[in-house]
Amino acid sequence: MTSHKKPKGIDTHISPEGSLEVLSQTEVNRLKCTSENGQYNLLRGCALAVLNCGSHTDDSKAILEQNKAFDIEVLQQDRGIKIHLTQAPASAFVDGQMIRGIREHLSSVLRDIVYVSSEVQHNSRFDLNDSEGITNAIFHILRNAGTLKANHTPDMVVCWGGHSISREEYRYTKDVGHELGLRGLNICTGCGPGAMKGPMKGANLAHAKQRIQNGRYLGISEPGIIAAESPNPIVNELIIMPDIEKRLEAFVRVGHAIIVFPGGAGTAEEILYLLGVLLNPQNDDIPFPVIFTGPESSRDYWQQINQFIGLTLGYQAQQRYKIIIDDPARVAREISHGISEVKKSRCISSDAFYFNWRLKISPEFQQPFEPNHENMASLNIRFDQPTHILAANLRRAFSGIVAGNVKAQGITAIERLGPFQINGDEEIMAPLDALLQSFVQQQRMKLPGTEYNPCYEIAKDSK
Amino acid sequence: MTSHKKPKGIDTHISPEGSLEVLSQTEVNRLKCTSENGQYNLLRGCALAVLNCGSHTDDSKAILEQNKAFDIEVLQQDRGIKIHLTQAPASAFVDGQMIRGIREHLSSVLRDIVYVSSEVQHNSRFDLNDSEGITNAIFHILRNAGTLKANHTPDMVVCWGGHSISREEYRYTKDVGHELGLRGLNICTGCGPGAMKGPMKGANLAHAKQRIQNGRYLGISEPGIIAAESPNPIVNELIIMPDIEKRLEAFVRVGHAIIVFPGGAGTAEEILYLLGVLLNPQNDDIPFPVIFTGPESSRDYWQQINQFIGLTLGYQAQQRYKIIIDDPARVAREISHGISEVKKSRCISSDAFYFNWRLKISPEFQQPFEPNHENMASLNIRFDQPTHILAANLRRAFSGIVAGNVKAQGITAIERLGPFQINGDEEIMAPLDALLQSFVQQQRMKLPGTEYNPCYEIAKDSK
Amino acid sequence: MTSHKKPKGIDTHISPEGSLEVLSQTEVNRLKCTSENGQYNLLRGCALAVLNCGSHTDDSKAILEQNKAFDIEVLQQDRGIKIHLTQAPASAFVDGQMIRGIREHLSSVLRDIVYVSSEVQHNSRFDLNDSEGITNAIFHILRNAGTLKANHTPDMVVCWGGHSISREEYRYTKDVGHELGLRGLNICTGCGPGAMKGPMKGANLAHAKQRIQNGRYLGISEPGIIAAESPNPIVNELIIMPDIEKRLEAFVRVGHAIIVFPGGAGTAEEILYLLGVLLNPQNDDIPFPVIFTGPESSRDYWQQINQFIGLTLGYQAQQRYKIIIDDPARVAREISHGISEVKKSRCISSDAFYFNWRLKISPEFQQPFEPNHENMASLNIRFDQPTHILAANLRRAFSGIVAGNVKAQGITAIERLGPFQINGDEEIMAPLDALLQSFVQQQRMKLPGTEYNPCYEIAKDSK
Amino acid sequence: MTSHKKPKGIDTHISPEGSLEVLSQTEVNRLKCTSENGQYNLLRGCALAVLNCGSHTDDSKAILEQNKAFDIEVLQQDRGIKIHLTQAPASAFVDGQMIRGIREHLSSVLRDIVYVSSEVQHNSRFDLNDSEGITNAIFHILRNAGTLKANHTPDMVVCWGGHSISREEYRYTKDVGHELGLRGLNICTGCGPGAMKGPMKGANLAHAKQRIQNGRYLGISEPGIIAAESPNPIVNELIIMPDIEKRLEAFVRVGHAIIVFPGGAGTAEEILYLLGVLLNPQNDDIPFPVIFTGPESSRDYWQQINQFIGLTLGYQAQQRYKIIIDDPARVAREISHGISEVKKSRCISSDAFYFNWRLKISPEFQQPFEPNHENMASLNIRFDQPTHILAANLRRAFSGIVAGNVKAQGITAIERLGPFQINGDEEIMAPLDALLQSFVQQQRMKLPGTEYNPCYEIAKDSK
Repeated sequence: MTSHKKPKGIDTHISPEGSLEVLSQTEVNRLKCTSENGQYNLLRGCALAVLNCGSHTDDSKAILEQNKAFDIEVLQQDRGIKIHLTQAPASAFVDGQMIRGIREHLSSVLRDIVYVSSEVQHNSRFDLNDSEGITNAIFHILRNAGTLKANHTPDMVVCWGGHSISREEYRYTKDVGHELGLRGLNICTGCGPGAMKGPMKGANLAHAKQRIQNGRYLGISEPGIIAAESPNPIVNELIIMPDIEKRLEAFVRVGHAIIVFPGGAGTAEEILYLLGVLLNPQNDDIPFPVIFTGPESSRDYWQQINQFIGLTLGYQAQQRYKIIIDDPARVAREISHGISEVKKSRCISSDAFYFNWRLKISPEFQQPFEPNHENMASLNIRFDQPTHILAANLRRAFSGIVAGNVKAQGITAIERLGPFQINGDEEIMAPLDALLQSFVQQQRMKLPGTEYNPCYEIAKDSK
Repeated sequence: MTSHKKPKGIDTHISPEGSLEVLSQTEVNRLKCTSENGQYNLLRGCALAVLNCGSHTDDSKAILEQNKAFDIEVLQQDRGIKIHLTQAPASAFVDGQMIRGIREHLSSVLRDIVYVSSEVQHNSRFDLNDSEGITNAIFHILRNAGTLKANHTPDMVVCWGGHSISREEYRYTKDVGHELGLRGLNICTGCGPGAMKGPMKGANLAHAKQRIQNGRYLGISEPGIIAAESPNPIVNELIIMPDIEKRLEAFVRVGHAIIVFPGGAGTAEEILYLLGVLLNPQNDDIPFPVIFTGPESSRDYWQQINQFIGLTLGYQAQQRYKIIIDDPARVAREISHGISEVKKSRCISSDAFYFNWRLKISPEFQQPFEPNHENMASLNIRFDQPTHILAANLRRAFSGIVAGNVKAQGITAIERLGPFQINGDEEIMAPLDALLQSFVQQQRMKLPGTEYNPCYEIAKDSK
Repeated sequence: MTSHKKPKGIDTHISPEGSLEVLSQTEVNRLKCTSENGQYNLLRGCALAVLNCGSHTDDSKAILEQNKAFDIEVLQQDRGIKIHLTQAPASAFVDGQMIRGIREHLSSVLRDIVYVSSEVQHNSRFDLNDSEGITNAIFHILRNAGTLKANHTPDMVVCWGGHSISREEYRYTKDVGHELGLRGLNICTGCGPGAMKGPMKGANLAHAKQRIQNGRYLGISEPGIIAAESPNPIVNELIIMPDIEKRLEAFVRVGHAIIVFPGGAGTAEEILYLLGVLLNPQNDDIPFPVIFTGPESSRDYWQQINQFIGLTLGYQAQQRYKIIIDDPARVAREISHGISEVKKSRCISSDAFYFNWRLKISPEFQQPFEPNHENMASLNIRFDQPTHILAANLRRAFSGIVAGNVKAQGITAIERLGPFQINGDEEIMAPLDALLQSFVQQQRMKLPGTEYNPCYEIAKDSK
Repeated sequence: MTSHKKPKGIDTHISPEGSLEVLSQTEVNRLKCTSENGQYNLLRGCALAVLNCGSHTDDSKAILEQNKAFDIEVLQQDRGIKIHLTQAPASAFVDGQMIRGIREHLSSVLRDIVYVSSEVQHNSRFDLNDSEGITNAIFHILRNAGTLKANHTPDMVVCWGGHSISREEYRYTKDVGHELGLRGLNICTGCGPGAMKGPMKGANLAHAKQRIQNGRYLGISEPGIIAAESPNPIVNELIIMPDIEKRLEAFVRVGHAIIVFPGGAGTAEEILYLLGVLLNPQNDDIPFPVIFTGPESSRDYWQQINQFIGLTLGYQAQQRYKIIIDDPARVAREISHGISEVKKSRCISSDAFYFNWRLKISPEFQQPFEPNHENMASLNIRFDQPTHILAANLRRAFSGIVAGNVKAQGITAIERLGPFQINGDEEIMAPLDALLQSFVQQQRMKLPGTEYNPCYEIAKDSK
């Protein structure tokens, strides 16, 4: 399905599909401005990412450089808008026609950029300095995207894991997705390859076997990562959250259960975010099924992750997940059972099925963290604070490493200023270093093919 | 289908249908406030109107008095909202179950009251002192209601005419609706009985014969008139515009053609509004099919209307409509043909099918006119102004008479201060007086059964 | 909706709609033969009837005479068949396009004529001399027409009554249909005007109010009567049974309840058929809701019918129905309740919802009765036989009168040989004569406008 | 997705899905008889095959022996029928629930066995000794299964090829299916693994990307082969034709184009059938796109096939197909283009899209060939006959080899009587022998894992 030489780009006009049919003249103008003013780079980057889904690289910077000739312009025309693309990646097209799934993704990108810009960021409706205000904004972005469906029984399984995983691990994620799909469950991931694609492919096949025609393959991305984790066209609901923190919150608000497959720094960030949230005492009685799983070959990997969590966040954090090795059917059965508990609990508390309002997320997990050298160096990674705050800071450390690995801005900063400096209590730094080194050895940091130069340094004697 | 004694009201809890499924906690709170604070009377009045659709009166004040025990309350419950009704009119129910169409109307009322209050009136997005701002607000209210459908070929016929018409005229409106429906056209009216119900009933039957399952029966009302013109449950899209001027603008923006049946003061208001807009030189080249029609018995009526228009707005206004007597099939054929011209024109100008953006409506027709004694007395109804401004002022005069006839506020004002005084050029006042007197004689002012006391006085020697 | 002068007929080619899409070459040939050989008259007569739905006459002979130029031909063309019509009644068309409902009826006519001819009459599969064989044939005709729907809860109300009824009675049938429709019930009638059209119109309106889009309006006709009882285009499932006896059996097998409105000889035939079947001791424990109803003005009518039944079939027959005067809502409530009992009973006995297999119908009610002078004269209408056999013979007497009134063959026979002679026990003949005379006086025998010459003579001293 | 130990069988009751809802009492009885009388073995064998889709063997005899305890019984119950299964293969179930696709397959099996038995084989309607009669029977079996869809544009691509192919070849069939699916084309295969499963999996994924929800995955099998080629649950239309000849005819009548992937004796049988039919002079001007394709590694394979065809059927046969190596996108483009030619041709000749009526198939290809030792030995495989008759006899030779390889009856016969003897002209026998030996070497005869003992002997000096 891949071609070896880069084919010539394609110039074309596209009508948006499914999200932007009825616009006021003001909104059309705003969209046109989007493609002309400051948001242009944002739009161009996201559009390129969804069009580029056939490529096999996770280097956002390289993607941008390879597609310098790519351009996108919004035109008012024919009772609506048209999108004019110049030198668009050929893999998005079949015989000159854009694949419909990709056309929908392009509309989703426009939809979310416009909505976030005009209704969230430059509107007094949402107080983005306030925890409730942030959650409310997330609710509205998701609702505007049509993600929140009333009268829909809980069935959304979030699957996390690495984009760079072994062939065996990838097959395993497909098998788990297949077993979930056979049980009528839907899949939400962060888009992209590896553990984010496998479960969707497996579920899609299983849904065909079960004659489920309205299976949901929900992808939640953000502008910084989307180029490195281009959404597969199977994704039939794509949402671009404004930043990584809102993306993570969206996952835990719409998901009814979470499965984590092996991965690298991004997966570690997700695990720490999730455990940090669940460790908040106000969430003690909220059921939230979490399973860490992988094939037989991942047994040591999970052993190490479990140990790291035990050493840093303690045994209580370990109570919040279950590790299952090499048993896709059992994973699906336990998730299915766990979700029925979630349903019961929501019914009792008269809570919505489509959005987990009751989950308490403290501001440490909501405020955007900018992963620059200064912020990274001043992270407080010590035991002298509540556990869930420690989790928040560890989460930030991994977030920075992800940025340094695959995000365009991060890569540039590392090139200019050298690796991030991370320091903290020796009892945390040692296992952290071990964990990161194992990620490097197992090629989980980046897609194989290039040598990995760490974008961080652990200051071991930091104490 | 009617019972003679008023049956006991019904107390019940209702879940809204179709419009309000996924709400944020803030929105639920806002809805609850609506039913507690200043908007309570607005909500109660509109809700009573849609529930009262089985009754046969057009006296808004009387309806409110007869239903003093009626109460509505919005409750947060069970992952959404519930509406608690006390002493709701029994005609809205079948064996204790509210008729589904009425349940949808109740949701539409809530939807529009909340949207107008929070997004239009108390929001800086729309400048309601500006012509474009008003049009933009109307667009957003209609879009929020789901009325604007992309990819839908022009087919919406607005039918205007009296709520109090003869049995023969009523049958005629049904026949016209039937012929429209046979040709696949949809119907938009102002809700209510008479000429607003007949075309929908006829079209509904014809749609069944043509196996059209998604026929549209669009009702556009406003809080002041809805009690007197309670929507028939056939209406499957109900919109409550904030005032009569926005309601009239909504009609001409979403309708692709307009048919006017015989009626009274309200119909005259509509005719003057429409001709006033179409007389705007900027609208000269916009095709807009308009037909005045009725059974044989209405020949004199239309003769008189035509004369009045000739005398006041001139022959140019007469070019904008065609009068067809007693020929429903021809009416439908000409409308159908006219709409195909509209479609061609919109395609050429790349204009939307679902909203007539290009139609110029000047502020005189957009600014709300409050029909109190002072405003009525100071109306400038003279020839010393552009024709379309004269049309605007004549429209206001009729608007005041409608208020004095059937709107609760108007009736109260007349009771307190006596009839409105209308004055102007003798050459206008004389035919105006004749026209109004004929409306009275033909029982077009109010539903038959009570003697009509004019709510106005024409100051003949006003010059 | 009617025009006074007969408009010119229309020549056109029509593609069948909905029933005949995928045909083998053999079947196409058979259809072509149908239009060429002996079945041609059957096809032409039925086709003319469905096309003639706009006319207002019940004289089959006159309809045929007025449309001598009408012709129908089946052509093989364009991957399927086309129907070529010559001088088709203009009322079936709107601006040159055949109304879709009528197009479907035309296909249904073809479908049933071909199926009955090839699969029922000239096929050893069904033994039409055997009671079970007849029932099996009826099942297959209905299934082939798509009438039998699995997974459909019981909701089919058969409405019987006269085609020639008063304006007040007609409105009443609409009101009853409206109340049935509000309760989600569907309607089955014999097609045609009067009591067969009113309930469908009422239900169609009510279904719109309740947002029921898949309402069923089932018409069951037979070749002899269809010209006189042309199906209204609202009918969205039309079935042509081979004869009146199979038509009557189809009614009681697919209906879950029966409402009878005032009518003439045909209605009396239906009542006697129904009571005769229900009086069969094997049907004692089968629930079958039956209501006789009409407006206040029909009180005497039902009094007389009730008396006639009491005098001829006895009080036991009177236990099988309930008379409700002037209360549409109560009729609908009782039918709705009765159907829920039917549902319970079917569940207990594991009987199908879509076909009343358990109802025992004895051969006297199944064997076709040819209403010629000899058969009419030799009917045994005496008390010296079981009651349900007497009912069968009375049914035949009324069937003959219907034929003499409105069927082409019957009218011709009466013209040639004079009225049918009916004789029997004096205690039956006297009330029979009285009943028939009242039908004449109340203009229930034929549509008003012509004087009625009885097609029968009661031999009073026959004993 | 597979488990190593054979799990315990499952006992359950199943309601048929989608095909058998509304049955007459006679039909229910007939179905019950089916499971009691002579057809029981047929039903049991086919049912076991569809339930066994998770297993990985092609030895029909072994499957039956491993599942001796399996039993199926049809019960009348609950307004319909139920199927009682004893010791059904566990792989058909997910947490005790049968996979819906498999439940549909079970219904399809019942549907076709009953239809073929009662309407085709024991009914005078179809003369199965006549060429037209056979084609008519095939049409009716397909129509009864709902396969023939009017108003459906040509898009059905038949994919043939081996069940035992290399991993690389399997991936290639998926890639081709993916490219076909991206172009909106549907897939028809003979069910089973390998080249029959790959294209469906690929197309299913591509349909998801293109948001095609009603993709068709049509499987056509026959009782003798179904156990060895168990339908994958993706198949959403399954048809069991009565024998291999009718199965082959069904392929060429419903398919609009054919792709052949590498395979063994069965694939050779299909190629010879297809070329034999297309070589019939009456089919000269019928467009029928045929492509032989495979990955780079299959280049020699196709070279050899092409040579064999040239040597036996001549260069004219070579004109009827195109060989494309290692280019899935080009295969799909050419097929897509070819189908548009088919569409044009059908339009011009007013032929149906859903059934290729015009294709002439002579009786040699229609009459069932029983592959016993006597028939195999007396096959006339010589040049002294028209080429398409030679093709027919070569087809029979391969058909016999398939039976000896994987069909239960054939395996038993070989065990008892030794290999089939095949003889004919030396110039044909030599390349035939070479071809068969290469199939053996490449493990195309049987699934890998066991040594292959040829079920045939080529009598080289047969001349």
